[in-house]
Amino acid sequence: MTLNHLSQRLAVAACKQDDRETKLRPFQDWRIHVDPDILNVIPFLSKGLPDKDKAILRCDATALAEAVRKGVYTAVDVLTTFIKAAIAAQDTTNCLTEICFEDALKRARELDEHMETTGQVVGPLHGVPVSIKDHIQVKGLDTSTGYTAWAYNTVAEEDALVVKILRDAGAIIYVKTQNPQTLLSLETNNNIFGRTCNPFNRSLTAGGSSGGESALIACGGSPFGVGTDIGGSIRVPAGHCGLYGLKGSVARLPHSGLLGSHGGMEAIIGCVGPIATSARDLALFCSVMLEAEPWLQEPPLLEMPWKGHVARGHGLPERLSVAILYDDGVVKPHPPILQALDKYKQALKSAGHDVIRWEPLDHQEGWDLIVKLYLLDGGTEYHETIQAGGEWEVPQTKWILDHARDRRPYTPHEIFRLSVEREAFRANALAHWNATKYRTATGRPVDAILCPVAPTLAPPHDSTSWWGYTSHWNLLDLPAVVFPVGQYSSSMWVPADPSRSRNSVEDFITRQWSPNTYDNAPISLQLVGRRHNEERLLAILGVIEKVVPPADSVPFLKRFSHSVNGHHKGMDG
Amino acid sequence: MTLNHLSQRLAVAACKQDDRETKLRPFQDWRIHVDPDILNVIPFLSKGLPDKDKAILRCDATALAEAVRKGVYTAVDVLTTFIKAAIAAQDTTNCLTEICFEDALKRARELDEHMETTGQVVGPLHGVPVSIKDHIQVKGLDTSTGYTAWAYNTVAEEDALVVKILRDAGAIIYVKTQNPQTLLSLETNNNIFGRTCNPFNRSLTAGGSSGGESALIACGGSPFGVGTDIGGSIRVPAGHCGLYGLKGSVARLPHSGLLGSHGGMEAIIGCVGPIATSARDLALFCSVMLEAEPWLQEPPLLEMPWKGHVARGHGLPERLSVAILYDDGVVKPHPPILQALDKYKQALKSAGHDVIRWEPLDHQEGWDLIVKLYLLDGGTEYHETIQAGGEWEVPQTKWILDHARDRRPYTPHEIFRLSVEREAFRANALAHWNATKYRTATGRPVDAILCPVAPTLAPPHDSTSWWGYTSHWNLLDLPAVVFPVGQYSSSMWVPADPSRSRNSVEDFITRQWSPNTYDNAPISLQLVGRRHNEERLLAILGVIEKVVPPADSVPFLKRFSHSVNGHHKGMDG
Repeated sequence: MTLNHLSQRLAVAACKQDDRETKLRPFQDWRIHVDPDILNVIPFLSKGLPDKDKAILRCDATALAEAVRKGVYTAVDVLTTFIKAAIAAQDTTNCLTEICFEDALKRARELDEHMETTGQVVGPLHGVPVSIKDHIQVKGLDTSTGYTAWAYNTVAEEDALVVKILRDAGAIIYVKTQNPQTLLSLETNNNIFGRTCNPFNRSLTAGGSSGGESALIACGGSPFGVGTDIGGSIRVPAGHCGLYGLKGSVARLPHSGLLGSHGGMEAIIGCVGPIATSARDLALFCSVMLEAEPWLQEPPLLEMPWKGHVARGHGLPERLSVAILYDDGVVKPHPPILQALDKYKQALKSAGHDVIRWEPLDHQEGWDLIVKLYLLDGGTEYHETIQAGGEWEVPQTKWILDHARDRRPYTPHEIFRLSVEREAFRANALAHWNATKYRTATGRPVDAILCPVAPTLAPPHDSTSWWGYTSHWNLLDLPAVVFPVGQYSSSMWVPADPSRSRNSVEDFITRQWSPNTYDNAPISLQLVGRRHNEERLLAILGVIEKVVPPADSVPFLKRFSHSVNGHHKGMDG
Repeated sequence: MTLNHLSQRLAVAACKQDDRETKLRPFQDWRIHVDPDILNVIPFLSKGLPDKDKAILRCDATALAEAVRKGVYTAVDVLTTFIKAAIAAQDTTNCLTEICFEDALKRARELDEHMETTGQVVGPLHGVPVSIKDHIQVKGLDTSTGYTAWAYNTVAEEDALVVKILRDAGAIIYVKTQNPQTLLSLETNNNIFGRTCNPFNRSLTAGGSSGGESALIACGGSPFGVGTDIGGSIRVPAGHCGLYGLKGSVARLPHSGLLGSHGGMEAIIGCVGPIATSARDLALFCSVMLEAEPWLQEPPLLEMPWKGHVARGHGLPERLSVAILYDDGVVKPHPPILQALDKYKQALKSAGHDVIRWEPLDHQEGWDLIVKLYLLDGGTEYHETIQAGGEWEVPQTKWILDHARDRRPYTPHEIFRLSVEREAFRANALAHWNATKYRTATGRPVDAILCPVAPTLAPPHDSTSWWGYTSHWNLLDLPAVVFPVGQYSSSMWVPADPSRSRNSVEDFITRQWSPNTYDNAPISLQLVGRRHNEERLLAILGVIEKVVPPADSVPFLKRFSHSVNGHHKGMDG
């Protein structure tokens, strides 16, 4: 790195941050300051807000859409509230990249006028503010995507298809959110805007790569947002911030118009998906996307309309068979996660459902394979883009790229072999799932797998070191949804036994377990379904949330009462 | 090539041919000899067969299944007849590779016993003989797939999934059929078994790569068979032999358990599909495949059940909008093909349908791209397998591999770029299709594209030189079906004008047009539908076949009256 490069990077970062400040300047009154020593910023976020703002912030997207449609709030009311909350989120967690409040307010006024004139909404998301992960293109805004080299060079000429559909449905785009350098990270840190913190405990990561989204939404700064996931990048930040996040099967939801490295890499394909404060908002997002028939716009998409009745539980058997994965054989999860799994096991059984243990299949082998698929070129394109910006690898970039450091790019023949390996892995896993029918009480293969999101709650910055609980389902292309189940406090601490570690990664993670490190961190679980069965997966989540109502066990969810009437709505609400 | 290599190849070929002879020896009485100078062997094939055999040979698979189910024929009756016809086909066109008549007869007896004992069929194809292209694995049989090196080294340990489903449905596997060296050819020739001829005119190719299937079925030697298509390999042989052939969208029909070069190559993915004597048999094949829920066995498959009611026309608009592609801008088709398109245009318009011209999109650019995708490794794997067998490239292998001769394998980065190009090409084509709504009388985008199968009827051996009319739809991953519309005789000859050729390929093909070359060749057309809409495509074909009943214009189709009652059945039969 030359001094010239360094100054180039510093200059770009300074300019980008300065631009962001400039955009916030007209809203100076709504900025907040929380002392850096205070780790949990949640209590400070809506302090002093009028009751009307607080009421709006308690709504999920479904409730907001209903409230605007019924005239309870105007689109301007709603957006103004979320702008206030987004500013507070930015000031406490550093979650925003691009800001377009003025354009958004203009659009909100147009929508209100439309309602007033016609009595009609423009679509099912009329007046709902939606936040967008940086690497998804929004017309007229920069798409720096965590790369210094891309800052100011990637102003989008068109909206990504997901953004276009959201706008057509009446949603208002008002912010873009932080993602890490390379996107290939389960934390959020880059050399343009720096690091995004977890609002429950700022010494912890908000997760990544959709960490700007998770921090923002957890702060109440957005009702729901759009992320992407190729190894956990929706689910891990959603899980670390106590939110709902859905990664569907590849090619069910619009995926065109994203800017990232490795365009055209098809060995493992990422997914666009929602992060939200309720399960029903995930279904709302999917239904809006698929009612737009995006397969008529984006060739790779499957012509599979959204089956709303299935998502609401139609056709689901009375008695479910659920498999629980406690330990993937590589890294045993920290105690609160195992306790949560046990709690759900008991609750499901008490409610009459059938629960068996999921025998994990080669998560280490799966990881070794997927990391080769991520880095077919040995990491060349990542290295080149980082160098072109005169920047250095942030720690989590270095960690992932070390997996292929100095390895030459694969030949076509080697790439073909890896695809064959991946397909064999998938076939094996599918047979394994089918074979659970010999172990269930229902005689059916299990309906879903309940498992950890990660081996830890949101970890301290720069310490993420095992993706196997999420990347495994990308490797298998299975839909997976993450949902909050509790919140950790140091008073709950029980020891873990580091002497039994099976490998150095597990050893490191087990030793991370200490009473105070994770204080206030949300506890989340993941539910994995059959390929192309996103609707059924959400229906099963609906059953689980009836068995254990989330608002009862997740204190922070009380912030989101999720309906205009003040009570939490389930999937069938 | 050393003498040692040469003798190795000759020895392997001699042994394989000798094995085939040995399998035919017990059936010596049914062998036929047609003088090599006689080009059209069709009149000789069922000469002297008893009326019962002739009646069986007039049935399509749907009719056969019905006849066996109703006890009109036994499975042994049906199989015995098709064994006779398959032997005649082999003796006149060289279409078979592996033969398992004894096992097949054993299975037929079992099926008959099952019927007798239970009164039930085992499935919808109970007692229907089905032929299988060589490169699809059939347990216990060799899978030499046109490679000397693979002969005797590739005895299948398991059935391919398509074969397994066929067997479970009651079908009887009794032969495997010829495919060319490399499979990447629209003719059928290899150094093991030699060349497969077109039974209508043996100086012409049967097409390829599923040319063993097309020759066999056209001879009446199989009611229907299974081929594969990555650039036209089902459609071109079906078209050249006057049959029905369907290439669906990628991942709709089972595709696992095939043996070919480039396993794991995903830039362009091939499709398994049926070749048959009626459109309704194509639907039967698809429904059998998808009722088996193959996505629970083969991970890449889409969970898209077969919509039989859609295939039978449910939901299809009364008035169709069809686009006709006359000329792809690279090679103008020979006169009989243009005449056929004109005839269908007039007939469709007279029946009240809306017909517009399809403006072709970059077929040359599409070809240049797809050939790069076929040969990402510069052809290395093909060359190595050919060399390993001590054999040489047959002319069509040389022709295709010349496209990448001496080019180094692509890097991962180059492969990514090519995928991006392919996706851009697809997006452009999709937008182009959508935009036809501005030109149709219905105001809808066109329902289907009617186009040539190839620029020529079945061409003389070793002269195929333009794939653009079929490979284009593989590049776009659109479903396409081929169907017979007539038969050429030299009395129909009209001149073409070679002076207007736009390039050397067109010049060559236009100069090929001469009065007698194509005598007796079938004339076929291709219908292309929207992705994942195989059912709708077949429903549209059903409408077209009502407008122009095939039996009226295709003399040789009279061989197949397609029903026990003796009249041709349409899609809704």
